[in-house]
Parts: sequence; C-alpha cells; structure tokens
Amino acid sequence: MSGLNVLFVAGTHGNEVNAPWVFDQWNSHPNLIQTYGLNLSTIIGNPIAREKGKRYIDRDLNRSFSERLFLSSNDYEVGRAKELLDLYGPNGRRPCQIVIDFHSTTSCMGCCLVVYGRRFADLALASLLQSRLGLPIYLYEGDASQQGFLVESWPCGLVIEIGPVPQGLLHHNIVRKTLTSLQFCIEEIHKAQADIINLPDKILVHRHLKSMDFPRDSLGNQRAFVHPKLQDKDWLPISYGDPLFQTFDGHDITFIEGSDSELIIPVFINEAAYIEKGIAMSLTLKESWDFKKKWYIHLKEILSRNYE
Amino acid sequence: MSGLNVLFVAGTHGNEVNAPWVFDQWNSHPNLIQTYGLNLSTIIGNPIAREKGKRYIDRDLNRSFSERLFLSSNDYEVGRAKELLDLYGPNGRRPCQIVIDFHSTTSCMGCCLVVYGRRFADLALASLLQSRLGLPIYLYEGDASQQGFLVESWPCGLVIEIGPVPQGLLHHNIVRKTLTSLQFCIEEIHKAQADIINLPDKILVHRHLKSMDFPRDSLGNQRAFVHPKLQDKDWLPISYGDPLFQTFDGHDITFIEGSDSELIIPVFINEAAYIEKGIAMSLTLKESWDFKKKWYIHLKEILSRNYE
Repeated sequence: MSGLNVLFVAGTHGNEVNAPWVFDQWNSHPNLIQTYGLNLSTIIGNPIAREKGKRYIDRDLNRSFSERLFLSSNDYEVGRAKELLDLYGPNGRRPCQIVIDFHSTTSCMGCCLVVYGRRFADLALASLLQSRLGLPIYLYEGDASQQGFLVESWPCGLVIEIGPVPQGLLHHNIVRKTLTSLQFCIEEIHKAQADIINLPDKILVHRHLKSMDFPRDSLGNQRAFVHPKLQDKDWLPISYGDPLFQTFDGHDITFIEGSDSELIIPVFINEAAYIEKGIAMSLTLKESWDFKKKWYIHLKEILSRNYE
Repeated sequence: MSGLNVLFVAGTHGNEVNAPWVFDQWNSHPNLIQTYGLNLSTIIGNPIAREKGKRYIDRDLNRSFSERLFLSSNDYEVGRAKELLDLYGPNGRRPCQIVIDFHSTTSCMGCCLVVYGRRFADLALASLLQSRLGLPIYLYEGDASQQGFLVESWPCGLVIEIGPVPQGLLHHNIVRKTLTSLQFCIEEIHKAQADIINLPDKILVHRHLKSMDFPRDSLGNQRAFVHPKLQDKDWLPISYGDPLFQTFDGHDITFIEGSDSELIIPVFINEAAYIEKGIAMSLTLKESWDFKKKWYIHLKEILSRNYE
C-alpha cells in the first residue's frame, strides 16, 4: 500500500442516487475498478437522507462543514459532518489526504469538476483531470451566502458533478459517467504520486460571478420559467439581449448584463435543488490560466504526508 | 353559465410542480384560457406537500380516496381526500360532474391519458380527447395493490400525465403541454355538452397487464438499471429477448415473456416516484376497440346532471 488515503463520497445529497449505487456495486465487484495500490475508502455522505429518498433531513450536508455550526447546531447533518471528519478527516481515525465528492444535477451539465476557492492542490488536481478528460471546471468562490462545503475540510478535494438526471432515479448515462470519472480520478492521483504525469500548460476555468434567481412576483412566487432557448444550454455563452426566461403569456425576459468584450456562461440552469436557494442559474466567466508549478508542488506535498 | 361544473386538479403529488404553476398563472391571467361558458374550478390537490416540495406528507394522495381509509386512517392525505370530496365531490358543496387530474412523470411519456377501469363516461371522454389530440390512453385496471385513485370518486374523471420532467422543476415543454391539453379538455367537454362533436369509430388503448420491478439482490437492493436501449422508449413495443436492464458489470437482463402474436408495450419506464412502489415499468397491450355509442350516452347523462 502507498500510504496515500483517498476518500470517495457519494450521496452527500440523499436523493442523488447514482454515485451511491455505483459505490455499492463497486463494493460487491471490487475487480471492476483498478486501484493502483492506493488506499481507497468509500462512504455514503447522508445515509439517512438516502434511505428516505430526500436531499437532507434538517439542512444541506454540503453546507454543514463549519466550525460555527459545530458549536451551535443540533441538526442531523451537522452531526454527520462531524462524524465524517472524525472518521476520515485530517485528524480522524483513518485520515485521508484527498476527498472526491460525487454529485448529480438535473441541469444539462455533462460531467464537470467543481473547485471551491483557489487552494493550490485543488487547482493542480483539477488541472490534471481536465488535461486527461477535458472536463470543464466550475470555480466557485466568494459567495458569502454559501459556506461549509464538504471538500474544504480536507487538504485537497473536488466535487464531480454529473447530469442531467432527475432526482431519485438510476440512469445508465450517469452510472457510466460516474464510473469513468471515478476510475480516471484514481489513475491521475496515482500518476501524480508516482510522478509519471505530464503537467499541462494551461487550465480553463469557469469562474463563478454570481447566481441569478427566477423572476418573482410581489409574493415571491416564480413568475417565469427558463426560456426554451436557454434550457439545457449549460456551458454555452450568452450575451446582452439573449432570452433568459419566459412568462406564461409568452413575454421574454432577456439578459441585460454583459458586454461585447466578455462572454458570460451560465451553468446549473434549472437545477431542481437550487430553487429553494433562489438560484435559477449561475453565471460564470471562462478564463484561461497558466498552470503553476507551485500548485503541483503543493499537491505532491499533500500526497506525501504520512497518514498511515 | 352551463350548469356543468368541471374540476381541474394539479399538485396531487406535491413535487410535480408544472401544472400547479400553470393553474396559478391561469388565475392571474384568466383570459389566456377560453372557458366556453363552463363552470371551471381549479384546486391544488396536496398544498402542504407542494409547499414542502415533497410528493406527499404521510401517504400518496392518489391512493387515498377509499372508504376503508376514511374510516380507519388519520394520515394527512386521507383527511385531504375527504376535504376535496366535501368541496367538489358529487355530494360536496360545489359538486362537479367531471374531474381532470394533472400529473407529471420522469418517464419519457409525452402527454397521455390515464383511465382507471372501464367506466363508460371515462372511455367516452378519453375517446374524444384521443380523437382530437392523438393522445395515447393507458387503461389501468385490475391491480389490487393500487387502489383509491382520485378520479374514481367523481362520476367521470381522467388523469393527464406529462413527461419527461424531473420532480420539482418547471420546464417550458411541460408547461406548454399542460396548457394545451387543459385548453383542449375544456373544448371537447364543451362540444360534447353542446352535441357538436364527431364521434370516433375506434379507440386505441394501452391496457395495463402488470408492473415489473427492477432486478434485486437478496437484500432487496436494485441490482441493475434500465437498459440504455430501453430508457426513454416508452410506448415502443418490446418482444422476447429484448434487453430490459443492465447490471454494473455489463450483463444484460432480457425480456423473457411475450410471444410472436402480441406486442408488449412498456410505459412509465424509470419513473422516479414508482421506485418505492417496486415498479421499474408497467407492461401494456395495445388494443383497438370499437367506440360504443352507450359510452357517449353515459357521458351525456353525466354532463346533463343539474349540479347548480
């Protein structure tokens, strides 16, 4: 064994059922995944919510990894967050250097990586996966209303988000993509550890600008739906004057931001779970960054920590 | 006004959000729907579940219209079923002759009618709608495990089922189909009442044969997903040897029923809400029946009842 412990999480949201199912099957058919000698652990993030077919019991588990909540909240998910850290956190019983958290979405996102903030090791690992698989990277940062993400509690961690799929059902496409991205994650982590990797020159990120709510009436009710021309068009640029929403009586609500010089790219368009958060879509800016050697050095330092 | 009272129900399942939204919009924009002088009422079947974004609170409202339950159960939905009957049932405060109950599904069903059993008036109304719109009819009957459907408590009633759409999100396609089928329902009921209708010669029904569960392991866990060749293929015939499911390790599970002489047609393939009922899909037989004049006479008799 390598001394490198990697944690794979699925079912952080209980109604996202594909990755948990893949994990169950993996446990019964261990030979279907090549492990390259890494110490791999799998865990269901929110098993009670999974059993009940709900996103969560008391609150979103993926907003519950926060010291402030640990001191103040009795919600089930806050307790579960502490439990996961006690088990697999950096100071836990079986500490893991890296965590990969699998999610699914009702948006037409395909398979993508979500990076929270700009930790060097996260950017390095995301770059390696993008270089290998061409996955888009959604860089989420600087939104004070959304805090306490699971992966931020580990030295290095990414979310893999796969869609579109309705909540609560297994779909062959999502199962296959989960399995493929799981296998490639393991390979790239192994190659980084063994230093047999070609480092990319560039990383393409979709940097989060802001989230946008549905148009609402004076009572707060949604008064328009995602425009037919925008539905399922995640990752495609929009510009000033493009339709965003349509009302019942056929009135278009258009995009009145943006400029000629920058292309705004919406993601998580019409994600069912975000409606309660007042999010119809998130707007991003696509940026090309130079890959920094120091990111990789930081990742290598984490990979070499002795957690045995 | 005509003396004919028609009840439209939406949100019988609280996480099916498109038809309730259409009703809300209709209430604010009454001119968008032509009523032909009928007395139309709209109601949200399960408003508490809608508010919570759940299918139901205690039990499926669309299995709660049962005298046995009325006498024995304290579940919220059973109380709500009684309340709906007290309001709009045949002996209610504002009795309605006809009920149309709008549902959505995660299955790729398009827009279809569901008829429960073979009540003459239901078959007549379904025939008229099929003749006008070409909608498939799913005839559900004779399954002792599923009882207490809403529409059965009114003299005449149909379900309109529209998909595919994930639970909990508004989709332009589903909104448009809901609106169109709502408008055509009103028109056909009006034309039947005014006797300005061409009766069809035939009705095509997809008669329910049985429901089929997912393959399960010894612990009852789902051990395969709907086969890529079958997903989204509702309404298309399958025959002996066709793939139904696929396991994680790529093993196909095939259809080993059916015969050369009859084509079995699956519907409700991978409906998220039916997984808890142990239903992966329902199998039907497509039959062409002669339209019976007596069906129409029965419908006309119901339409002429004086409920003012």
